[in-house]
Amino acid sequence: MTSLEDALRPAVGAAHVLVDDDLRAPYETDWTRRFTGAARCVVRPASTAEVVAVVRACAAAGAPVVVQGGNTGLVGAGVPAGGEVLVSLARLAEVEPVDAVEAQVTVGAGVTLEKLQTHARAAGLDFGVDLAARSSATVGGMIATNAGGIRVLRHGSMRAQVVGLEAVLADGSVLTRLGGLAKDNTGYDLTQLVAGSEGTLAIVTRARLRLVPLLPARAVALVAVAGTDAALDLLAAARAELATLSAAEIFYPEGLDLVRSHARLPAPFDGPAGAYVVLECAARTDPTDHILELLSSCKAVEDATVASDRAGLERLWAYREAHTEAISAAGVPTKLDVCVPLGELTALVAELPATVARVTPTARVIPFGHLNEGNLHLNVLDAGDRSEEVTDAVLRLVAAHRGTISSEHGVGRAKAPWLSLSRTPEEIGAMRRIKAALDPQGMLNPGVLLPG
Amino acid sequence: MTSLEDALRPAVGAAHVLVDDDLRAPYETDWTRRFTGAARCVVRPASTAEVVAVVRACAAAGAPVVVQGGNTGLVGAGVPAGGEVLVSLARLAEVEPVDAVEAQVTVGAGVTLEKLQTHARAAGLDFGVDLAARSSATVGGMIATNAGGIRVLRHGSMRAQVVGLEAVLADGSVLTRLGGLAKDNTGYDLTQLVAGSEGTLAIVTRARLRLVPLLPARAVALVAVAGTDAALDLLAAARAELATLSAAEIFYPEGLDLVRSHARLPAPFDGPAGAYVVLECAARTDPTDHILELLSSCKAVEDATVASDRAGLERLWAYREAHTEAISAAGVPTKLDVCVPLGELTALVAELPATVARVTPTARVIPFGHLNEGNLHLNVLDAGDRSEEVTDAVLRLVAAHRGTISSEHGVGRAKAPWLSLSRTPEEIGAMRRIKAALDPQGMLNPGVLLPG
Ligand SMILES: Cc1cc2nc3c(=O)[nH]c(=O)nc-3n(C[C@H](O)[C@H](O)[C@H](O)COP(=O)(O)OP(=O)(O)OC[C@H]3O[C@@H](n4cnc5c(N)ncnc54)[C@H](O)[C@@H]3O)c2cc1C
Ligand SMILES: Cc1cc2nc3c(=O)[nH]c(=O)nc-3n(C[C@H](O)[C@H](O)[C@H](O)COP(=O)(O)OP(=O)(O)OC[C@H]3O[C@@H](n4cnc5c(N)ncnc54)[C@H](O)[C@@H]3O)c2cc1C
Repeated sequence: MTSLEDALRPAVGAAHVLVDDDLRAPYETDWTRRFTGAARCVVRPASTAEVVAVVRACAAAGAPVVVQGGNTGLVGAGVPAGGEVLVSLARLAEVEPVDAVEAQVTVGAGVTLEKLQTHARAAGLDFGVDLAARSSATVGGMIATNAGGIRVLRHGSMRAQVVGLEAVLADGSVLTRLGGLAKDNTGYDLTQLVAGSEGTLAIVTRARLRLVPLLPARAVALVAVAGTDAALDLLAAARAELATLSAAEIFYPEGLDLVRSHARLPAPFDGPAGAYVVLECAARTDPTDHILELLSSCKAVEDATVASDRAGLERLWAYREAHTEAISAAGVPTKLDVCVPLGELTALVAELPATVARVTPTARVIPFGHLNEGNLHLNVLDAGDRSEEVTDAVLRLVAAHRGTISSEHGVGRAKAPWLSLSRTPEEIGAMRRIKAALDPQGMLNPGVLLPG
Repeated sequence: MTSLEDALRPAVGAAHVLVDDDLRAPYETDWTRRFTGAARCVVRPASTAEVVAVVRACAAAGAPVVVQGGNTGLVGAGVPAGGEVLVSLARLAEVEPVDAVEAQVTVGAGVTLEKLQTHARAAGLDFGVDLAARSSATVGGMIATNAGGIRVLRHGSMRAQVVGLEAVLADGSVLTRLGGLAKDNTGYDLTQLVAGSEGTLAIVTRARLRLVPLLPARAVALVAVAGTDAALDLLAAARAELATLSAAEIFYPEGLDLVRSHARLPAPFDGPAGAYVVLECAARTDPTDHILELLSSCKAVEDATVASDRAGLERLWAYREAHTEAISAAGVPTKLDVCVPLGELTALVAELPATVARVTPTARVIPFGHLNEGNLHLNVLDAGDRSEEVTDAVLRLVAAHRGTISSEHGVGRAKAPWLSLSRTPEEIGAMRRIKAALDPQGMLNPGVLLPG
């Protein structure tokens, strides 16, 4: 044991090899508090060269590695199973000047989304992905998970923002593609392969990111509808009529209740509704009139409230964005993140309560998520010791509706046993061959993504 | 030899195993007429199952395979080097009904772009990629090359349109991901890995494609500017001010002359200009006023002509789109397709003539292309027997300007010897490991993309 730590200390500086229990602890439990494991040590390199030195030392010692960014991931992929060296990328936090001509920027893997957003906006541009964990989630983690969030409708997922990256392979070799060329068809797109690979193929150290126009004028509508079917009607109308549509989210009465008591928010409407939709438009000039026109013409609308000033936008978004925190405050949820074809969404939502009740009658399921993509976050509270059985039942229901077991959070350790519900044996076989080709020792994030 | 053909005939039907010289000939020379090779035979499967049978038979016989779609590729990747079995996907031409809710469609790999466009438009939608070879280029070939074209500015390259695909690996196993889920983070994105792999990793048999809104109102401006710098100023203004911008293309006086005499077009302007830019806007309502506003405020504009009716659009686009054909009519060009950061474009264009002249004074270079991405097609005419030396000199110049040797056409056989100008040894090493993992015998498109 000593020899590895002795090799790591000169590589990153003794202060950045954490071996004491209390120093390691903040890195060892995930955001959901469901995944915990002891790291052999926590290493905090500050540059690509230091990451290379760390990887080489671990490879030489045959020591497996767990990669961690902001530790906001929700599938237990960034914390140890037990005994791995935890490599934190948080100190790779350099931000290069925005390239306004190309609308691109190069940043370190440890840069938080919030820092990236602030940086881009100061240059009159914006970043295309946004999510509620913005103050902690890092660029490296978001690339590794191919994060989605609330602007996928407009700009696509994280992989669509990544023009190129720098990454360290398990043998310590460095892939570098930071030139930022808008189009480059010279061989396999290793950038796109690393995106979404959850730290199992390479450690991202820097990224060249596409920026999008900053759209200063926003309007948000919170809409009460009768249920999922009506929400889909509203979505179809919004897609057809609102050229500036930038988000379409959904939540349900159970979630609204939790959010209201956690964040102490007033009822948005006088009466109850079957479901709630958040629509946002973003443009160069105020899109409020377009939203109002849609609301007055779409029959699915039962009630609606619209805002376009900063305080109003925040007030309406809070009903949707506070879900994750409000649910966690109510207990340790079983978190599922699924996606079905839009045509299956109504049936899925209708069948969920009974499916969960058949496993354990005490449990309750709170769905919310990204309506535009048919992506629901299903949080199950009070499942007690039946979490695994609930997961199994719900993911099988999702698969029966032609859905996927992970829409945007990734497979991680949490969903790896169910991967075959979404991917064929041939696909999993090809994935294993690629993993073996790039990481023959199985050193990076063992147990994550591919079932052991 | 006999045994392989004997295995292929029952697999696809005797009429679809072409062995006679004259039957094979149309498949053996590429569109540029620079690449030719004899195929052992041409096989024309009509279904995924038939492709599997063909691949298995070839694998069993140790026979290398060349994959071909519409044979419009420009880097010699779809025709044999000599002796391979040529597998044509042209008969996989099935088109499923458009899924209007998801704005997606599933089509066979052999469907032409034109057929796809017609199909999508009949459903009130459109396909996001467009290019001049639309009547012959196939979906499979466009995925394999990650084709670009004239709408990348608005919708991205081909890979951005591919939601999922079905593909046959070298061992005959079939990867299938046609569910069309908008977001699916379950493991490595094999779809994105196959996109742009130029037939070296898998044979695409079907694809699930994203469709985009059909924007019926278009306006095009052909603009005369002083030169490349002025074109970039115009581009910057157009990007900043035209929310509906859908294309920004460039060409130069040499190209205009060739096009005018080939297509018998009148001079677009009274006097000469240093460069010409085509701007297109597409929207739900007529964008002509926006374009006119830009033209009147942007100082880079020397002269301009605008059209928004169908005939006018075609007339103005012809100046740009007829380049490829006009150049081919003037001789067999050395075709290069490069991309540099926008900040390097002016210097590259300025240095090209002398760079080519140093190799051979008789040659002339005609640049044109996709201004928005800094992507120039450099066609060199009259290089005589110095084509390779010209290629070498120009690609080195491009690399010195931080550019890539292939922007959208791919590496193919034509550029494989220069791959290391654009990719590092570590990247090429990783690519070779992936190739070996998925095609250990090196059966698919040997000699393409990766230097031998
Ligand atoms: C309140 C809240 C809201 C959220 N909302 C969303 C949402 O809307 N959409 C969404 O997609 N996600 C959401 N998430 C999940 C999470 O924020 C994302 O998965 C995010 O991308 C994780 O980033 P991170 O830096 O925290 O990564 P971590 O949690 O540290 O790691 C996540 C994964 O990435 C790997 N990894 C981390 N850094 C690197 C690196 N540099 N190189 C290689 N691999 C690396 C890890 O090994 C692990 O597999 C939310 C989370 C919270 C807590
Ligand atoms: C006039 C003209 C204009 C053009 N304009 C553009 C342009 O603007 N932008 C652009 O990017 N390209 C352009 N091209 C190039 C060409 O049209 C594209 O490369 C196109 O994608 C090739 O499609 P194809 O079906 O003809 O493929 P082919 O030429 O048959 O093959 C091209 C490559 O794809 C592989 N391939 C073909 N089908 C499959 C399959 N089913 N599975 C796996 N691999 C396969 C082949 O092995 C080969 O490597 C143009 C060509 C011409 C002639």
